Amino acid sequence: MRVGRARGAGEVAGRTPPRRSVSPMSAPKQRERLVVIGGDAAGMSAASQARRMRTPDELEIVAFERGGFTSFSACGIPYWVGGTVDGLEDLVARSPEEHRARGIDVRMRTEVTALDLTGHRVRSHDLDSGTVTWTGYDRLVIATGARPIRPPLPGIDAPGVHGVQTLDDGQALLDTLRKTTGRRAVVVGAGYIGLEMAEAMLHRGYEVTVVNSAVAPMSTLDPDMGRLVHDAMTAMGIRVVNDAEVTKILTGEDGRARAVATDDAEYPADIVVLGIGVRPETTLARAAGLPIGDHGGLLTDLSMRVRGYEDIWAGGDCVEVLDLVAGRERHIALGTHANKHGQIIGANVGGGYATFPGVVGTAVSKICDLEIARTGLREKDARASGRQYVTATVESTSRAGYYPDAGRMTVKMLAERRTGRLLGVQIIGREGAAKRVDVAAVALATGLSVEQMVNLDLGYAPPFSPVWDPVLVAARKAARAVQAG
Amino acid sequence: MRVGRARGAGEVAGRTPPRRSVSPMSAPKQRERLVVIGGDAAGMSAASQARRMRTPDELEIVAFERGGFTSFSACGIPYWVGGTVDGLEDLVARSPEEHRARGIDVRMRTEVTALDLTGHRVRSHDLDSGTVTWTGYDRLVIATGARPIRPPLPGIDAPGVHGVQTLDDGQALLDTLRKTTGRRAVVVGAGYIGLEMAEAMLHRGYEVTVVNSAVAPMSTLDPDMGRLVHDAMTAMGIRVVNDAEVTKILTGEDGRARAVATDDAEYPADIVVLGIGVRPETTLARAAGLPIGDHGGLLTDLSMRVRGYEDIWAGGDCVEVLDLVAGRERHIALGTHANKHGQIIGANVGGGYATFPGVVGTAVSKICDLEIARTGLREKDARASGRQYVTATVESTSRAGYYPDAGRMTVKMLAERRTGRLLGVQIIGREGAAKRVDVAAVALATGLSVEQMVNLDLGYAPPFSPVWDPVLVAARKAARAVQAG
Repeated sequence: MRVGRARGAGEVAGRTPPRRSVSPMSAPKQRERLVVIGGDAAGMSAASQARRMRTPDELEIVAFERGGFTSFSACGIPYWVGGTVDGLEDLVARSPEEHRARGIDVRMRTEVTALDLTGHRVRSHDLDSGTVTWTGYDRLVIATGARPIRPPLPGIDAPGVHGVQTLDDGQALLDTLRKTTGRRAVVVGAGYIGLEMAEAMLHRGYEVTVVNSAVAPMSTLDPDMGRLVHDAMTAMGIRVVNDAEVTKILTGEDGRARAVATDDAEYPADIVVLGIGVRPETTLARAAGLPIGDHGGLLTDLSMRVRGYEDIWAGGDCVEVLDLVAGRERHIALGTHANKHGQIIGANVGGGYATFPGVVGTAVSKICDLEIARTGLREKDARASGRQYVTATVESTSRAGYYPDAGRMTVKMLAERRTGRLLGVQIIGREGAAKRVDVAAVALATGLSVEQMVNLDLGYAPPFSPVWDPVLVAARKAARAVQAG
Repeated sequence: MRVGRARGAGEVAGRTPPRRSVSPMSAPKQRERLVVIGGDAAGMSAASQARRMRTPDELEIVAFERGGFTSFSACGIPYWVGGTVDGLEDLVARSPEEHRARGIDVRMRTEVTALDLTGHRVRSHDLDSGTVTWTGYDRLVIATGARPIRPPLPGIDAPGVHGVQTLDDGQALLDTLRKTTGRRAVVVGAGYIGLEMAEAMLHRGYEVTVVNSAVAPMSTLDPDMGRLVHDAMTAMGIRVVNDAEVTKILTGEDGRARAVATDDAEYPADIVVLGIGVRPETTLARAAGLPIGDHGGLLTDLSMRVRGYEDIWAGGDCVEVLDLVAGRERHIALGTHANKHGQIIGANVGGGYATFPGVVGTAVSKICDLEIARTGLREKDARASGRQYVTATVESTSRAGYYPDAGRMTVKMLAERRTGRLLGVQIIGREGAAKRVDVAAVALATGLSVEQMVNLDLGYAPPFSPVWDPVLVAARKAARAVQAG
């Protein structure tokens, strides 16, 4: 992998130190350079953590970001679009200037367009000046994130059709909202982003239709739980169309989107929001021959090193992660994982040691006052993994039943047959429902059985829980199902 | 233990079956009798669970309750007194009539006054008719609960001084509130009940003084965390007097309480509320020679059988429980434990098998909008157990910082030195703070290290958590402290 070394031209050639062995446990005296591709959660967490561990004299850090922002919360975009969060600046955790003040050389609006692994260098393209530069690296972090799925449908690029992946996307959508007089919004997709955008459009006063290809919203849930989401959305005044494949975006004479068409019907739209999900952005990595998994993400070891490469790390939305319950890799685009990856990469790059053990598939979301949470396996995941399982579904409340604002919730639990090991939990309910999934997340990570869960010492007081926490009620019912066979 | 057998007189003599071996795994054909002493959470859960497992033809169930209510939520009394919960009936989960309809022979206002273990019978006293009866049992459940600590101070029994242990206490306090024109309330004690009652009195429009013998409120927390509670209470307009031992209740010419006196000062009071905590009610058990622990509670094995007795179980506030972190017994009066004990006892009495593994010391509470949670060991507990430890305290928020109503919280974490094993967590903050302690409760039960906790896959979305959950931020800081030595 490290045969020879051709340093790039331009700015960096002069300051690149000669090649030497990279040993994370002993800090070399000569200055090394870390190059980070991608200036969001994973990349800048890695850079920041490496900076905490190594002085600028020891480690130069150069970070390339093709967009106009660093360290922003993509997860916050729906709340900004919906008006729950005031401004774009609220979503930026740390600006390029703040990073620079901490000794990280951030190059904004500069896209990395090629990796030269043999030459240990990356080619970047300054999007404003057009300048192309090669920059050498001793260590490389790939944090190129994900790109929204944008099916090649007729009309998909028409004005009035918006994704919500970047802050620029969010700003463009808000600009369109300001100009749009009609009040009909069609959201394509009924996953987390679809639901959050449906809420945002409701908040903005739109009539909202959600067009969904699955049998029920939130296909990360079992369909029986998804149907509860469907019913709640309908009660909020949202039209939910399931089992519907979008075939094209119809445009008007002005070229703007005017409707979303499926095989069966047309849904008039003054604005169309795509919330179909994302795929790992690994164009560069593929071109360079780095290992890519079944779900399109980079493959790393537990220290977040790209498999087979001593000096390249990758994290965030562009990698696959080990699902500890399913026992296989998955792609999960989630800011919390990206931040953890970044910290782990930074620690390892900086000469420390840290690993990311994997995930159990926890996710929480909400649409208006309905909270949605899941972790672990759905029924179809359990079947796919060859496991036999029992299920238990219970109704309970977030507080003691007699306490004001006790919110109803439904908890569904899957446990392995015979062993009783917890396999998954799904929760749908009102305030106080979603974060209860964390108990199941820890139980999954530690391999608890539902029988063991029954007596977990969870916090109880009337404002916080019934005397049996809903998760424990579900565990009790699941344990009985395990006992019964 | 089972030498001979003298059946009691009266009603029961005729229906008692001859003595036989009690084998929980094989259902005997002859009808047995289960006697339950105490009609609240533990007792009636045990009775109900046993009834689900055994028909009335197999098992007769007689439950004695000296008060006027069954299966009520003592934990809800402060919210009823404060007006948050409407009526007494809200706090009763199941009435005597409902229990009777399920085949449980509940004897209300009937106090058990003696246990005859040799004769396998209990003596009861009908508080209305005065009738004394002996009732034979094949299996016995002791669920006599706890009694409030009522120090033998001058004036403690004066009118205007109220405890809040039973529904009758709550009713008496409400009656006094209705008659009281003054608006000064003094709450003695600053533990959970003290704080909940301070909130209740604030809700009722009283000026509240809390007199507390410890250095800060909530002595189940470390003093540094208790001081945060102190400051928040002060900001709510509560006068908090720490380090103050109450020496007497001063009474007026009418005999009513008029002030609470300490060594240093007098605190005028139109009403005095005692919230000093409770002790196990084990008078009967002690008199019968049953094993009592260092904290005054009955000692049981993990199946909740009284140690050394085949046919006697005990649960709820009258027993001690194993603290899995401290490795020793404690007394914790908490409805959630009582309910679990009851279910376990009922399963075992009914011929099944269940155990209560112990607790980790989780408790949550709130005063107005301040949430308080703790689990595991405090610093002084860690020292007492001979452990060396590190601490980490962090500030974070319940939601993404940019999301509306993100509530500040402080999380303190203790981890064992060198091993990094989690030892305890304390959380103080606004909405969304308290139930986060559940993650730590599971981590304690499963023996996780803080390093292992850092990458737990907890639910993240901006309305529910910062990208790093506050518990994980604390774990990360604690892990660094462990690494540092």
